[in-house]
Amino acid sequence: MLKKNQTTLYNMNIFDTLIEQINEKQSPICIGLDPRLKQIPEFLVKKHVERHGNIPKAVAEAFKDFFIQIIDKTHDLVPAVKPQFAFWEMYGHDGIKALQETIAYAKEKGLIIIADAKRQDIGSTSDAYASSILGESPLPDDSTKSMFDTDIITIGPYLGSDSINSFLEVCKEKNKGVFVLVKTSNPSSIEFQDQKINDDRVFEVVAGAVENWGKDSIGDSGFSSVGAVVGATYPEQASKLRRLMPHTFFLVPGYGSQGGAGADTVHNFTNEGTGAIVNSSRGIIFAYEKDSNPEQFAESARSATINMKHDILSALQASDKLPEDWKI
Amino acid sequence: MLKKNQTTLYNMNIFDTLIEQINEKQSPICIGLDPRLKQIPEFLVKKHVERHGNIPKAVAEAFKDFFIQIIDKTHDLVPAVKPQFAFWEMYGHDGIKALQETIAYAKEKGLIIIADAKRQDIGSTSDAYASSILGESPLPDDSTKSMFDTDIITIGPYLGSDSINSFLEVCKEKNKGVFVLVKTSNPSSIEFQDQKINDDRVFEVVAGAVENWGKDSIGDSGFSSVGAVVGATYPEQASKLRRLMPHTFFLVPGYGSQGGAGADTVHNFTNEGTGAIVNSSRGIIFAYEKDSNPEQFAESARSATINMKHDILSALQASDKLPEDWKI
Repeated sequence: MLKKNQTTLYNMNIFDTLIEQINEKQSPICIGLDPRLKQIPEFLVKKHVERHGNIPKAVAEAFKDFFIQIIDKTHDLVPAVKPQFAFWEMYGHDGIKALQETIAYAKEKGLIIIADAKRQDIGSTSDAYASSILGESPLPDDSTKSMFDTDIITIGPYLGSDSINSFLEVCKEKNKGVFVLVKTSNPSSIEFQDQKINDDRVFEVVAGAVENWGKDSIGDSGFSSVGAVVGATYPEQASKLRRLMPHTFFLVPGYGSQGGAGADTVHNFTNEGTGAIVNSSRGIIFAYEKDSNPEQFAESARSATINMKHDILSALQASDKLPEDWKI
Repeated sequence: MLKKNQTTLYNMNIFDTLIEQINEKQSPICIGLDPRLKQIPEFLVKKHVERHGNIPKAVAEAFKDFFIQIIDKTHDLVPAVKPQFAFWEMYGHDGIKALQETIAYAKEKGLIIIADAKRQDIGSTSDAYASSILGESPLPDDSTKSMFDTDIITIGPYLGSDSINSFLEVCKEKNKGVFVLVKTSNPSSIEFQDQKINDDRVFEVVAGAVENWGKDSIGDSGFSSVGAVVGATYPEQASKLRRLMPHTFFLVPGYGSQGGAGADTVHNFTNEGTGAIVNSSRGIIFAYEKDSNPEQFAESARSATINMKHDILSALQASDKLPEDWKI
């Protein structure tokens, strides 16, 4: 485990901090905060409808309530949470307010926040997204205020480096990070991402760019502040990308509901069992559905987190990648 | 000009409606609602700071106030407005509330709303963005409510068709549209978009997919509900894309501040002078800076809109593309 001291702190980037937390908790997994109204326990929704009526605010408050209870029961088990902005945006400004408050709560509990927003735009607009989600926004008296204050954001590569640079500047200034979409977990990711440009596939060309964008921000652990999204559902591609991107930390979606198993995720890790964090959303947060105990949804989420951790660590052990001092 | 009647209505998609409005106003242009605090007239910001204090809500209210006045002075001149979500999201839930209210106001004035959000995600999350920005979100009593109620959204292609299909379903159900990023206006768009896949460049491959995604939704005017973003800053590529995508309506960013001139935009139009709408944001909304009259910012925006319209129409005329019954 890395120790904090003046010398190492100077070179620490957000992925050093994430790795420190992963090692401390022996847990390279994160929980996706992706609320879907029809899967939030009915008693919880009812409580907020009774208070506010059948309006977006009631839904947004139910989401926040749901996740605060899940965070309380799981924050000792995971280093990070990953709110998916789409599900909160579905309830307009009420949803965004609840998202801001849920993020603030998770931060108080020491969790690293991965904003799954998949933003992309041209330079000057990209600046706005970078300020909004990772950085701070200016106020009329020239002070600034952070709105979401997340640590790492997912972004798209299609617009090229002037789009990415906006985020990299904020990463440098405020010790934040990005995960660039390289190879996504969905079935149709093959349509463009797997097309060939000369001898390389598109996702390999993007991988080269990601390594290059990160070359000036490599931290103590050997990873730059420019990470990559590499899905759990394409193990062969993940192996290749792990070799092509030695300084790039991977966010691995697709575990669980999308079909990826623990054994599929090991290809995203280095031989030393580092360099990746695996996300699960539905499989953890809605685990209570299998247990048929809506009142105990947070307990179910805790058990599912423990099971997932065991699955990933067992898979790492089976492939000789489990870090030496970790226990299953 | 198309007339509304029972027969044509049946086949009308959102781009038929947009073209109808463009023809009625003889104006293939839209105004970008991209607020940047430092460019909002000081007297207006001060008014809201006095009311609310130096907080995000004051900024958000100033944005709304600013655009309501601009909409009042320009809605007779343009068929559509294009809010850029990033600049509103910079002020968290207050910004999103002001955005929702500004959109509602623009709709009341008969404007078509293009949500410049550039969203992209895997299928089930893409559903959430589609519901949120174009469609309706479910409430606890099984009713639904639209949150942003925009007409057309910009989206990214990198995740392939399962990401796009979520939006296409809402387009079909609720007569909405999308603009897929094909060739963007920024300098570094060449990095990935211009790479070669066999004999085609990446943006040409995406163009083929866009035509294909739209093939079942072609309306009376000959355009599908799947449009494309094709920047004004690459005229040669625009000419080629116009030929490759005969059923695709183009959103053309990059005019004005980004360097595109009226003459550069004509390549995005068909020979009949249709099939495209050109956006300007800063050049219109902050035109008062050149006129040095902050109190009259909305008047300046009106003059700038008239000038832009004249520039585009003159360019269309110079290239023999001006629709027959239009006057400059």
